Amino acid sequence: MAKDASKYTGFIFNDSDVYKWLEAVAYARVVEDSAELRTMSDEVIDLVAAAQMEDGYLNTYFQLTGIENRWRNLHTMHEMYCAGHLIEAAVAFAENHQDERLLRVAIRFADHILSIFGPDGRLGFCGHEEIELAFARLSALTGDERYADRARWMIERRGQRPSIFAQERTDRDVLALSPWDNGQTHAVESYEGDYWQDHAPIREHNQVVGHAVRSMYLYTGALALFSDDEDLEVAMLRCWQNLTQRRMYITGGIGPSPKNEGFTTDFDLPNLTAYAETCAAVGLVYWGQQFLERTGNAEFADVTERALFNGAISGLSLSGDHYFYDNPLESTGSHSRKPWFDCACCPPNIARVLASLTDYLLSESETGVYIHIPSALRADTTFGEIEVVGNYPWEGKFEIRYKGTTRRTFTIGFRIPDWATETNAEIEGAEELAEFEDGYAVFDREWHPGDTVKVDFEMEPRWVECDPRVRENLGRSALCNGPLVYCAEEKDLGFAPQLVTALTEAPPVVAWNPALLGGVNTISVDSIVEVERFPDGLYAEAGSTETREQTVSMIPYFAWNNRGPNGMQVWLRRA
Amino acid sequence: MAKDASKYTGFIFNDSDVYKWLEAVAYARVVEDSAELRTMSDEVIDLVAAAQMEDGYLNTYFQLTGIENRWRNLHTMHEMYCAGHLIEAAVAFAENHQDERLLRVAIRFADHILSIFGPDGRLGFCGHEEIELAFARLSALTGDERYADRARWMIERRGQRPSIFAQERTDRDVLALSPWDNGQTHAVESYEGDYWQDHAPIREHNQVVGHAVRSMYLYTGALALFSDDEDLEVAMLRCWQNLTQRRMYITGGIGPSPKNEGFTTDFDLPNLTAYAETCAAVGLVYWGQQFLERTGNAEFADVTERALFNGAISGLSLSGDHYFYDNPLESTGSHSRKPWFDCACCPPNIARVLASLTDYLLSESETGVYIHIPSALRADTTFGEIEVVGNYPWEGKFEIRYKGTTRRTFTIGFRIPDWATETNAEIEGAEELAEFEDGYAVFDREWHPGDTVKVDFEMEPRWVECDPRVRENLGRSALCNGPLVYCAEEKDLGFAPQLVTALTEAPPVVAWNPALLGGVNTISVDSIVEVERFPDGLYAEAGSTETREQTVSMIPYFAWNNRGPNGMQVWLRRA
Repeated sequence: MAKDASKYTGFIFNDSDVYKWLEAVAYARVVEDSAELRTMSDEVIDLVAAAQMEDGYLNTYFQLTGIENRWRNLHTMHEMYCAGHLIEAAVAFAENHQDERLLRVAIRFADHILSIFGPDGRLGFCGHEEIELAFARLSALTGDERYADRARWMIERRGQRPSIFAQERTDRDVLALSPWDNGQTHAVESYEGDYWQDHAPIREHNQVVGHAVRSMYLYTGALALFSDDEDLEVAMLRCWQNLTQRRMYITGGIGPSPKNEGFTTDFDLPNLTAYAETCAAVGLVYWGQQFLERTGNAEFADVTERALFNGAISGLSLSGDHYFYDNPLESTGSHSRKPWFDCACCPPNIARVLASLTDYLLSESETGVYIHIPSALRADTTFGEIEVVGNYPWEGKFEIRYKGTTRRTFTIGFRIPDWATETNAEIEGAEELAEFEDGYAVFDREWHPGDTVKVDFEMEPRWVECDPRVRENLGRSALCNGPLVYCAEEKDLGFAPQLVTALTEAPPVVAWNPALLGGVNTISVDSIVEVERFPDGLYAEAGSTETREQTVSMIPYFAWNNRGPNGMQVWLRRA
Repeated sequence: MAKDASKYTGFIFNDSDVYKWLEAVAYARVVEDSAELRTMSDEVIDLVAAAQMEDGYLNTYFQLTGIENRWRNLHTMHEMYCAGHLIEAAVAFAENHQDERLLRVAIRFADHILSIFGPDGRLGFCGHEEIELAFARLSALTGDERYADRARWMIERRGQRPSIFAQERTDRDVLALSPWDNGQTHAVESYEGDYWQDHAPIREHNQVVGHAVRSMYLYTGALALFSDDEDLEVAMLRCWQNLTQRRMYITGGIGPSPKNEGFTTDFDLPNLTAYAETCAAVGLVYWGQQFLERTGNAEFADVTERALFNGAISGLSLSGDHYFYDNPLESTGSHSRKPWFDCACCPPNIARVLASLTDYLLSESETGVYIHIPSALRADTTFGEIEVVGNYPWEGKFEIRYKGTTRRTFTIGFRIPDWATETNAEIEGAEELAEFEDGYAVFDREWHPGDTVKVDFEMEPRWVECDPRVRENLGRSALCNGPLVYCAEEKDLGFAPQLVTALTEAPPVVAWNPALLGGVNTISVDSIVEVERFPDGLYAEAGSTETREQTVSMIPYFAWNNRGPNGMQVWLRRA
């Protein structure tokens, strides 16, 4: 970068991974501010600042390979995407550490972008959305509405015709800048734009299309930026329903296809070849969280929790140093986490979510505190200290304690998850009953120091069935317990999990297993298993298949593949 | 070609499709010798002859693109493969029509090849096997053993180290001749050679590997050429067992992967993505036929019949003018036959098999006549005219009649198919019982003109199960009737066949349906079908899936996709 003029290596958007790492460090240092992390992040911030050009532009790829080509190929080259991650990291440092060094760099770059692209300048936005959400956060921090205004303009211009991306794709020289295109120009009339969510103006979107991560970033940004716009919210709700009712794995994984790293058609959810990129599940967490903040409706937190506890954290090994890019729901033994990727988007993305996890567990409104996910926590809120005590998600019982030092009147609410069939909640020593609103149980009262709400979701393992239009899951069931999706892994079974037919009428038995996989609830399931013995020849008369009864032990999906590559299956045949 | 010096178009091995078409015409003209076919084939033969070079070489690709490059890239460029098909067509014309014009061309080319490649010349054989079998036929026709000797030499040299193909792949200029290679040279130490069956000397082969069609052509040629070689037969039997007991679809389709158009690992037989190239099933028919001729054992004819009636003829539409390249065992509606292919190997291949079908139905030994597949036929044999009367494969009852004009003592045998659970055979008006040898029922006696053997295989529809190591078929059954594999097609059901769970305990009901698909037996099967209705959201509690009972009508697999693209499934879930 600034101090090394050697040749650029790696993907064109590698800058963004440095920024995402910085953002994660900003959050991590709130929890534990080590000298080592501080030194490392200081050094990186200095490097980034030194690399910035006089006019505010900053992108090591074009600075090292030919600055004359900057801003020429917006749909492929990720320049504003990288800028967006710089801005998000800068905001995180300013908000959490009153450290504005990176923010000064970010604002200079943001102003450079504003000086080029806008209603009075050039029409432009990025092939990979990200700058929109970053501009929203920059405006929120600085109070300077220019950034949010420009982001709204970018979102509204996207999908209009003529498409600027389609125009770029007719120019051989522009395409040649892309490391992925084959140099063949594309006729404008054949351009559809799905991959970039450039297929239609956002208010006309009615399903999720194209690259899944891009889609999630666009929609998260749009919800944040158009906060009072009901028309846009209606479009976003259409897309949300399309996604969650037709295109989302039970793990919260999204985007089934490796071809476009994204969406295909309704109900196309293959298990073995599922792409379900870790970053896309993280993106769904972001989008659901935006919807939750906007509406206060628990259904969005249901999805956020599903993605968080399953398809997002499955991306990370229990050792914290190996990553899945794609998160299939079935394996025949060849899939495994890698220490890193050339395209290293997922590792820092999961890091920044986990480092900012508290935001997803609890939030405040003007009138009180709402617990979205009742993991054990202690939070200083405007209304005093709130503590959640329990062993969630391993148990469905927990307590919410008001630890303030004075009596205070406010609301304490908690989400009733979609999977909870019966919820008991009582205030210790009081008779009051909760009221229910938007999927939350709420107590609005005067709280005394030490007051405790005891909640029990009566968490029991349950078999879940899938819409029959998902052909892959016909005749199959998935085992869940609370928010966790379970799977059968060959390491526990001693044979391929594909051989299992679950006897779903028999009650599954939960057992806490502290020595396994860092401590997990395993669930024992009665099943029928095909014996791998057969008459000579592949095909034989009816009745040739031998079976035996067997109890199999299942583990949480997120914990699979931590004992080496081996067979795994989420959706088991049911008897 | 000779009369058109314009640029070459199409695949490098397009010559071979012309030759395969000529071979099919030679067979077809035995059945019905139309003036139109005669004129067309005469014209093509003249063109081919005129295109031949002075030294005997003939390959329009190199003649039009640069003759200096001939014989430089043996592993990719298909020159001997094309020569082989020229020779086979030439033999067919000479044998069936006493027309030796093409044979003269073929011999000149064959002699050219012998002048270059051989134990005293250059080490060489073709990346796509075919010349071996062609040389065998040329020697058989001409009595000139040089061709068969050279073919045996090529087969024995293949798979030895150092590999000539590996050497070619280290030379950038040689690789650049190939339209498929990316010009990157390959280290010799990383060369495995599976794709070309160049992984090991043939006597060490113990499983089928690589490109399926090449593999079948090699093994068919080897069996034909090494007729008294037990050592080689043992190797071939190992490969045969590996193929038929671990790597063959129930349809006789082989080679599951589109990546190498070939074999992968044992028990890897995906249905929806099955490649199962038409040509590969045809190749299996050839190989099984060679084994049958060599051993007289019915088990080889069982496989030949399976491939012929299912995975081979499925390649051809009932209208005779549309073709499958790949023959999956499941469809969600996007697969359909095409009028032709850029790579047009399959259409003429299926044509030459169908045009020479009689060879697979019946053969003679020194002592008698053996019926392998009892389709209705009338054959002039050394022992007199033999007629088979019946409606096979739609019915399992048939009669074999001796229509000779004098009494004659010889054997009449017929294969008892592997699927026949009980076989009744009697000679009308006689008490004699058949003897059984190698899977054949044989009557060795003096036959009087008009003597008739009445046979009944008691053909009943039957459900077949699959070795549980084929994960895709776990919990599934396939319906067969006689040699025919059945499938459920959406056109008959009105809904996706994936929704069907067959009640395999209920007896399937066969009905002749003359108006459907040119006349087929349909089979009615009781089943349970998921209703495509589900609570809001993709995932719901146990018991949410509604089902109804439904009788579904199934059709023979070979006849699917003749009413437009739609859903299809062979392996149905069983209750």
